[in-house]
Amino acid sequence: MNIGIAGLGLIGGSLGLDLRSLGHYVWGISRSSDTCKQAVAIGAVDAACQEVSMIPYLNKTDVVFVCTPITAILPTIAAIAPQLSPKTIFTDVGSVKSAIVGEATKLCRFVGSHPMAGTAFSGINAAERNLFKNRPCVIAPTEDREAMVVVRSLWESLGMLIYECDAAVHDRAVAWISHLPVMVSAALIHSCQQEPDAEVVQLAKNLASSGFRDTSRVGGGNPELGRLMAEYNQTALLKTLHTYRDVLQSLIGEIENGNWDALQALLETTQAARPLYIK
Amino acid sequence: MNIGIAGLGLIGGSLGLDLRSLGHYVWGISRSSDTCKQAVAIGAVDAACQEVSMIPYLNKTDVVFVCTPITAILPTIAAIAPQLSPKTIFTDVGSVKSAIVGEATKLCRFVGSHPMAGTAFSGINAAERNLFKNRPCVIAPTEDREAMVVVRSLWESLGMLIYECDAAVHDRAVAWISHLPVMVSAALIHSCQQEPDAEVVQLAKNLASSGFRDTSRVGGGNPELGRLMAEYNQTALLKTLHTYRDVLQSLIGEIENGNWDALQALLETTQAARPLYIK
Repeated sequence: MNIGIAGLGLIGGSLGLDLRSLGHYVWGISRSSDTCKQAVAIGAVDAACQEVSMIPYLNKTDVVFVCTPITAILPTIAAIAPQLSPKTIFTDVGSVKSAIVGEATKLCRFVGSHPMAGTAFSGINAAERNLFKNRPCVIAPTEDREAMVVVRSLWESLGMLIYECDAAVHDRAVAWISHLPVMVSAALIHSCQQEPDAEVVQLAKNLASSGFRDTSRVGGGNPELGRLMAEYNQTALLKTLHTYRDVLQSLIGEIENGNWDALQALLETTQAARPLYIK
Repeated sequence: MNIGIAGLGLIGGSLGLDLRSLGHYVWGISRSSDTCKQAVAIGAVDAACQEVSMIPYLNKTDVVFVCTPITAILPTIAAIAPQLSPKTIFTDVGSVKSAIVGEATKLCRFVGSHPMAGTAFSGINAAERNLFKNRPCVIAPTEDREAMVVVRSLWESLGMLIYECDAAVHDRAVAWISHLPVMVSAALIHSCQQEPDAEVVQLAKNLASSGFRDTSRVGGGNPELGRLMAEYNQTALLKTLHTYRDVLQSLIGEIENGNWDALQALLETTQAARPLYIK
């Protein structure tokens, strides 16, 4: 196939490496000319330009993967779709789906995807082969079954485990396991910052160990990503936060009232439930 | 020195291995005769019995380390202190100090300690050399300076980094970095259990990855330990939980009102603060 990748970071670059190794022709676009050069140099794309109009054989493109940050997904599609054949299928890699799918479908043949893969690094130089292998990928079904089949089989060809589900179901699920943890974890760090006694603060810093390190990790991550999760998944995230607030309040109540057996019973359910989420 | 260890689990056993390698004579007691035999077999103690009265040269004991679970610390001291010389110094390894130090000081020459070391394992067979090396140890000062110096130098001889501070300051610091994270993390798991839509729950389980794994780790741990943290450190833990509840509410408010810049500013402070706690 003739495949385009818009946005040549960790995800776009890794995708290009794998797709080319499967024999596809892959072109890429990036705002940065250095990134374009580097993407060609590492073999992530056959050709790359800053302007999509400069790509050769553009109207032969079968599929475009939009791998930009969330905020740029719709503007990118709006800018490049009119320059491609109306048969070209678009998909994305955004971590929210409802806010993208409805609008994108108005602009092009679109199938919303969320491949859940990544590393601690970013940028084209972090691209690696087999990043997607055995990782889950959500695809939001559309009425365009032909487009669905094409996008699904491309992700499958990279070794991804496919889950088809409505955009709203996806957004609620990732709110629980990805976006809520960020807010819960950030609130932990921010709470520690409220301690007024400098001696307590200093000792806490000296004693903090693996428990604090793990629980605070995602709350100490990229602030812009955290903001975008909340902005683009506001409704689903708020629903989980309201539930979390209620659960926290009932847990505080047990501790205030010294209901130690009830507290232990709650902790027994969480000990039993966690392995259902952890592979 | 002649040193006793009451409670031969991971901590007591590892302590015995290190103290014997430094040339001390070490005896141990455990409720289990199998544990006593095993402690001798692996070289963690020179002698071990279920009854302290069976230990030879008992009245020559210089220091006793009480390495039982928190609930057993005071009963253990009450049971064995009358059988030893009144000069014998006692210390403990409990993860709370205020609830222990005041009472223990009435029963014997006592110095409260909290060596912060451990592994994912427990029991005498998990004992290992150098478990305490380069790990922090809090000691709560007492008026008995001689006892302080003895206990401090023993922990230092194992390579521990000593922090002397009041029991109340210790308890507030560990509430922030150890006990609050357990409750925050448990509330996360328990919230996920409240989702009523089975399709969302199943997808959440399928998609959960490193972010959920890390944030939920300590909340999915030993329920009895979590209960004891709350029971023995109720006041300090509640203070952190009340602060956490306020911070969470203000974070929810920013998201409800779409104050994305304010949310990002908060996440920038947590990103900047976390490295101050993480070595």
